[in-house]
Amino acid sequence: MIDALAPDAGRLQGQIDELSAFHDSGRPGWSREVFSEPYRASREWVRAAMAEAGLNPVIDDAGNIVGRLPGRRRSGPALVTGSHTDTVPSGGRFDGVVGVLAGIEVARRLRETGTELEHDLLVVDFLGEEANEFGISCMGSRAVAGVLRPEHLDRTDGDGLALGTAMERFGLDPSAALGRPWRASDVHGYVELHIEQGPLLERSGHDIGVVTAIAGIDRLLVTFAGRSGHAGTTPMADRHDALVSAAAAVLTVERVGCGAPVHGVATSGHIQSGPGSMGVITDQARLWAEIRSVDGSWLHGARRQIVDEIASEARARGVDIDVEWLTDQDPVPTTEAVRDRITEAADDLGLPWKAVPSGAGHDAAHLATLGPMGMIFVPSVAGRSHCPEELTAPADIARGAHLLAATLLRMDSP
Amino acid sequence: MIDALAPDAGRLQGQIDELSAFHDSGRPGWSREVFSEPYRASREWVRAAMAEAGLNPVIDDAGNIVGRLPGRRRSGPALVTGSHTDTVPSGGRFDGVVGVLAGIEVARRLRETGTELEHDLLVVDFLGEEANEFGISCMGSRAVAGVLRPEHLDRTDGDGLALGTAMERFGLDPSAALGRPWRASDVHGYVELHIEQGPLLERSGHDIGVVTAIAGIDRLLVTFAGRSGHAGTTPMADRHDALVSAAAAVLTVERVGCGAPVHGVATSGHIQSGPGSMGVITDQARLWAEIRSVDGSWLHGARRQIVDEIASEARARGVDIDVEWLTDQDPVPTTEAVRDRITEAADDLGLPWKAVPSGAGHDAAHLATLGPMGMIFVPSVAGRSHCPEELTAPADIARGAHLLAATLLRMDSP
Repeated sequence: MIDALAPDAGRLQGQIDELSAFHDSGRPGWSREVFSEPYRASREWVRAAMAEAGLNPVIDDAGNIVGRLPGRRRSGPALVTGSHTDTVPSGGRFDGVVGVLAGIEVARRLRETGTELEHDLLVVDFLGEEANEFGISCMGSRAVAGVLRPEHLDRTDGDGLALGTAMERFGLDPSAALGRPWRASDVHGYVELHIEQGPLLERSGHDIGVVTAIAGIDRLLVTFAGRSGHAGTTPMADRHDALVSAAAAVLTVERVGCGAPVHGVATSGHIQSGPGSMGVITDQARLWAEIRSVDGSWLHGARRQIVDEIASEARARGVDIDVEWLTDQDPVPTTEAVRDRITEAADDLGLPWKAVPSGAGHDAAHLATLGPMGMIFVPSVAGRSHCPEELTAPADIARGAHLLAATLLRMDSP
Repeated sequence: MIDALAPDAGRLQGQIDELSAFHDSGRPGWSREVFSEPYRASREWVRAAMAEAGLNPVIDDAGNIVGRLPGRRRSGPALVTGSHTDTVPSGGRFDGVVGVLAGIEVARRLRETGTELEHDLLVVDFLGEEANEFGISCMGSRAVAGVLRPEHLDRTDGDGLALGTAMERFGLDPSAALGRPWRASDVHGYVELHIEQGPLLERSGHDIGVVTAIAGIDRLLVTFAGRSGHAGTTPMADRHDALVSAAAAVLTVERVGCGAPVHGVATSGHIQSGPGSMGVITDQARLWAEIRSVDGSWLHGARRQIVDEIASEARARGVDIDVEWLTDQDPVPTTEAVRDRITEAADDLGLPWKAVPSGAGHDAAHLATLGPMGMIFVPSVAGRSHCPEELTAPADIARGAHLLAATLLRMDSP
């Protein structure tokens, strides 16, 4: 039974290649950002691929593409798998995509082999999972979990466009997206296949990562207000240089990240300073940074440490700061029962596996509020991700898709 | 004679106020950048003010507005004074403006009192003195000194517009600007009145600064090339984060500046990093910085120290750097004979003076290649400059204009 569900690796890789053709060709790598034209076009392709696989896809109120393979019971909670197909700017071809297309391939193999599950199987392409200018990642899975809130719709992108308006222009009804979350009774369990996006599996030589927890993420925007002045005539001791304080903050963020005892990282993603002329001391700077960890208590301490140190360094330079927390997401452990089904199936298939944390956020974190949740990782070459060099070998993707099928079968059993 | 040449302080202040009305009203403070619409309009006003003062102004081939008050000799080298009327973005109302308008006021008082000089007196509003996006400050005084070069015309601004094209659009002939420098035999001497732009005079309670030297300026652009990757999954030890290296460089620049034994400053004026998404480690950053000093040997050492330390810090993070020197300008001492005329005149007028360095660059540095050169500083409130808060009291401006007149009279004597 299990071997029969091995994916058609060539077909799966072909679909990954086809989907990768939808991207903004004016930028390096693969850019298919939420609400962009390439994203809109790629979703038509995803919908067609689901239809062709017999999944009768619908676009739900939150903009998720939901395919359904009916089970023997014809009603009751469903088994759910999926991921997302949007990318970061200049990202790669595998992040999210592998989970959606492997889900479709599993459904295809189930039909091709005449394998009927007890539960309905949902394969979902969740709307807009990646971090974006609105500051609202995991749009579709948030909506499904009932945590997309009215105030999120007012968030604006760099051009001042509100998320709600962007959703409307994309053909969605934002109020409907808020109003129809799934119920826990809809979900028998959720399992998501994803690339690791880090170097741990490749380094240890394991085919499979069984995710222990999804890291919590705290994102902050620090605004520095100093005093401008002539760069040639203002003595060093008289300065209140906003950019110098922001630079010290970047090093503080890095130092705190390096001090994490287990999995913990801290990153300064973006900086701006002004007025930006040669010859003028900067009077303002903004720094966007984030900390992530699967260890909630470390995250909590790191958060306080970063703000305290940035504040104290800025104070010493006579620079005022303002700290705004943009995201504040606790770590989410995976469900032990789902982990057990994954490891049993991996052992059955003879796939060496390793328990790993997920440094990245995932739709799975939101699905966890609805039922048992687990994640399967496959290796990323050189640990690269969110960049054009992102790569997972076809054989690794096929192994992951096979394990996804085997896990869903085990989760389906009474 | 000297007291008769005291300026009409109200009239001079009125002219400063009038000129300040020409600025980009869409931005804070006073923005009248070279080639901008407000700059174009303000130059019509300056030309009219010179004409009204009897200076028969012409626009020379380099775009300088040159007014001439004929002297008794009717030919031979001229006494020259002047400054500039362009501003940095969101700058102030006094930097440069005081020198041009005080020069016009001196000419007016000479005519009103029937005082005829031996030499012709030129009052010059030099084109584009401030640092700008082309990286070519002191455009007009460079041209006059014969050091505006063909390759400068190819420099581009942020929109890719070449300086030569910008000059043409402004109604100038760039090849003529290159081809007609002044000769040393044209210049009997140059003296420029300017606001101090720093806090030294206010702190020591002196009315007048007699400039000893104009600081040399070295400006550099450092480009950092790291490696992008997922901010949640890439272990801290595996990163090659371009923004972290750039931040360390900002602190290096500050540290070197703070180590200057005499007058020396170092400033990071602007930073950029990319790709700029939350969740993605930066793979590129650019930092524009500068060091200034009146001490050429410190400048030379600081320059090497900054590059060495930035390179070594980046190397430790596996980040590649590229350093481009945009400006490399040696310190320029003022001429002892001109300093003596200034201090004699100040003593005569009972004005307490102090010898001070100029941390800022000035058109005077280029005029120094043509003949004896000196500069007079008046106090800046709280040392602020290149910002909207820039302020010099009307009484201080009047004292400076009076001293400028008295100095020119002394320089005029055989």
